[in-house]
Amino acid sequence: MVKLAIDLMGSDLGPEELSKGLKDFLSETPDCQVEVFGDEKALQPLFAGADRVSIHPADTVVPMEVSPFEFLRKYRTSSMFLACQTAGKDTSIDGVVSSGSTGGFLTACHTLVGRIPGVVREGLAAPFITAKPGHQTLILDIGASNYCTAEELVCFARIGKIYASRVFHRTDPKVFLLSNGLEEGKGLKETVEAYQLLKGDPSFGGLSEARDALDGTKDVIVTTGYPGNIFLKGTEGTAELMMGMLKKAFTKNLRTKIGYLLAKPGLKEMKRNLDYRATGGAVLLGVKKVAVKSHGNSNAYAFLNAVRLAYNMVKAGLVKGLEEELAQR
Amino acid sequence: MVKLAIDLMGSDLGPEELSKGLKDFLSETPDCQVEVFGDEKALQPLFAGADRVSIHPADTVVPMEVSPFEFLRKYRTSSMFLACQTAGKDTSIDGVVSSGSTGGFLTACHTLVGRIPGVVREGLAAPFITAKPGHQTLILDIGASNYCTAEELVCFARIGKIYASRVFHRTDPKVFLLSNGLEEGKGLKETVEAYQLLKGDPSFGGLSEARDALDGTKDVIVTTGYPGNIFLKGTEGTAELMMGMLKKAFTKNLRTKIGYLLAKPGLKEMKRNLDYRATGGAVLLGVKKVAVKSHGNSNAYAFLNAVRLAYNMVKAGLVKGLEEELAQR
Repeated sequence: MVKLAIDLMGSDLGPEELSKGLKDFLSETPDCQVEVFGDEKALQPLFAGADRVSIHPADTVVPMEVSPFEFLRKYRTSSMFLACQTAGKDTSIDGVVSSGSTGGFLTACHTLVGRIPGVVREGLAAPFITAKPGHQTLILDIGASNYCTAEELVCFARIGKIYASRVFHRTDPKVFLLSNGLEEGKGLKETVEAYQLLKGDPSFGGLSEARDALDGTKDVIVTTGYPGNIFLKGTEGTAELMMGMLKKAFTKNLRTKIGYLLAKPGLKEMKRNLDYRATGGAVLLGVKKVAVKSHGNSNAYAFLNAVRLAYNMVKAGLVKGLEEELAQR
Repeated sequence: MVKLAIDLMGSDLGPEELSKGLKDFLSETPDCQVEVFGDEKALQPLFAGADRVSIHPADTVVPMEVSPFEFLRKYRTSSMFLACQTAGKDTSIDGVVSSGSTGGFLTACHTLVGRIPGVVREGLAAPFITAKPGHQTLILDIGASNYCTAEELVCFARIGKIYASRVFHRTDPKVFLLSNGLEEGKGLKETVEAYQLLKGDPSFGGLSEARDALDGTKDVIVTTGYPGNIFLKGTEGTAELMMGMLKKAFTKNLRTKIGYLLAKPGLKEMKRNLDYRATGGAVLLGVKKVAVKSHGNSNAYAFLNAVRLAYNMVKAGLVKGLEEELAQR
């Protein structure tokens, strides 16, 4: 039985929307039970009679923008704090999921769940769709920190490799460093240093430019958090821009509108592939439990996928894999 | 009469392809003359009988990857060196255009053309298309340097403002700082510092996330070069990925293929808007002459647009505008 701690508060659409996704997940996954955290009055009716759900009352909600200091000082009775604290303390719990504040979640996982021994920095990672159907590329760090050292980048590379092999089921996964050119010596100082540390590692594939990051030939791309975050949001913005242009192209006149109706089946598939809600959210790697941060504006479908992602990571034995890898030096 | 120095060597498709674009430009622009630099034997037949073209022989070509030191030591007789040197020395020349090595061009402009007094760092800038038709957003720096100080970011903001008002013809243009969040205090150390320096300036619009950079509400976005480069190439890669997905969507079956044929007029317009070749290339801002770096794989159409961009910047009095702005403190 997989057991997950779920923070149901702090998202844009509220616990009712998230609970729908969670109940759908539970009905398709008989070997999973959840401990949900949040406003008891709101949650009781949502899960009345539900199987494999225990409700833990929490009387505050973490706001989207919160500093680590504020979080630890003011929100010790929040649903997010309690969910992560329980995940950290209760050995029977395998993972934690939240749609709330990213900053709060990073702090909570770091302090309450704790790092796997050997991890020098947790990495916030996201699986990206690529030009190769079914082939996702994991990119980390996408913003847990602005700056990272070369040693931290090397740690991300080791973490990413295990993710690719356990969760993506890749044999012999290759890890790349994001840079602004392909020649050795290109990039930030820490990229150049990390390159030297990774050189010779058979799983190191070299540098990748942002242009080729999603070409479907890479398993993992490692970057410091700030450019990683710019990359993530830049791709989201560009995808949105192009979808808008596409809509305009199809509504140009009657002829193009009919064209749209005919092409719709193919376009729907494309839209589904591009939907960030299908990937389930970002994962925080390097802590002692599986940790998924789903998008703040998650709907039921997105949250279902976030919980499914957490479940899949547990089933893949990701944390155990990381513990084994990081114990080696 | 506008006078431009043109380096015709060092591009992927060679001088013959570029010369086509240049000749097209000259035929549509009677008040422009050019000094072209390159292999005399190759250039003579290409411009035989051409009006308003003088050929300057140059016997070496700068390779795509070149260090500043190498460039200045080994390539003093190259077409790029001579074009930039002539632009720097000859007061009758208004600007310089090249499709060769970006690194070489940055070094050449910096050392041979020289900075406008008051400029603390040149910025490589690119106009991006946005969600608002006809509204471009200028982003700089997109990779002239990996690191920038807060003072350099402030300099980019002043430069960008003049570009937006002179070249985009925006009244009261607004300049934003690229960051990983919208709240004051978000971003790299230098972003946070630059925010403090720009706060209170009526043309400062605040922070912009990468997701909203191309939403069509911004005139200029300023960033340090490394994340700027990641943003540029990330958007290019995403656009390419989506065009590939779109192609797949339309070729799914006979029905979607017919849909494509009907929707084609709208889609062609979209493709034309997305074509980076239509924007003409990147511009190096802060040097004493107009400087355009067109894409290394420019075809005739792209090069025509690059030369046209240089011509338009000259006609807009960009350098004079920058000199006036930067002289104020």
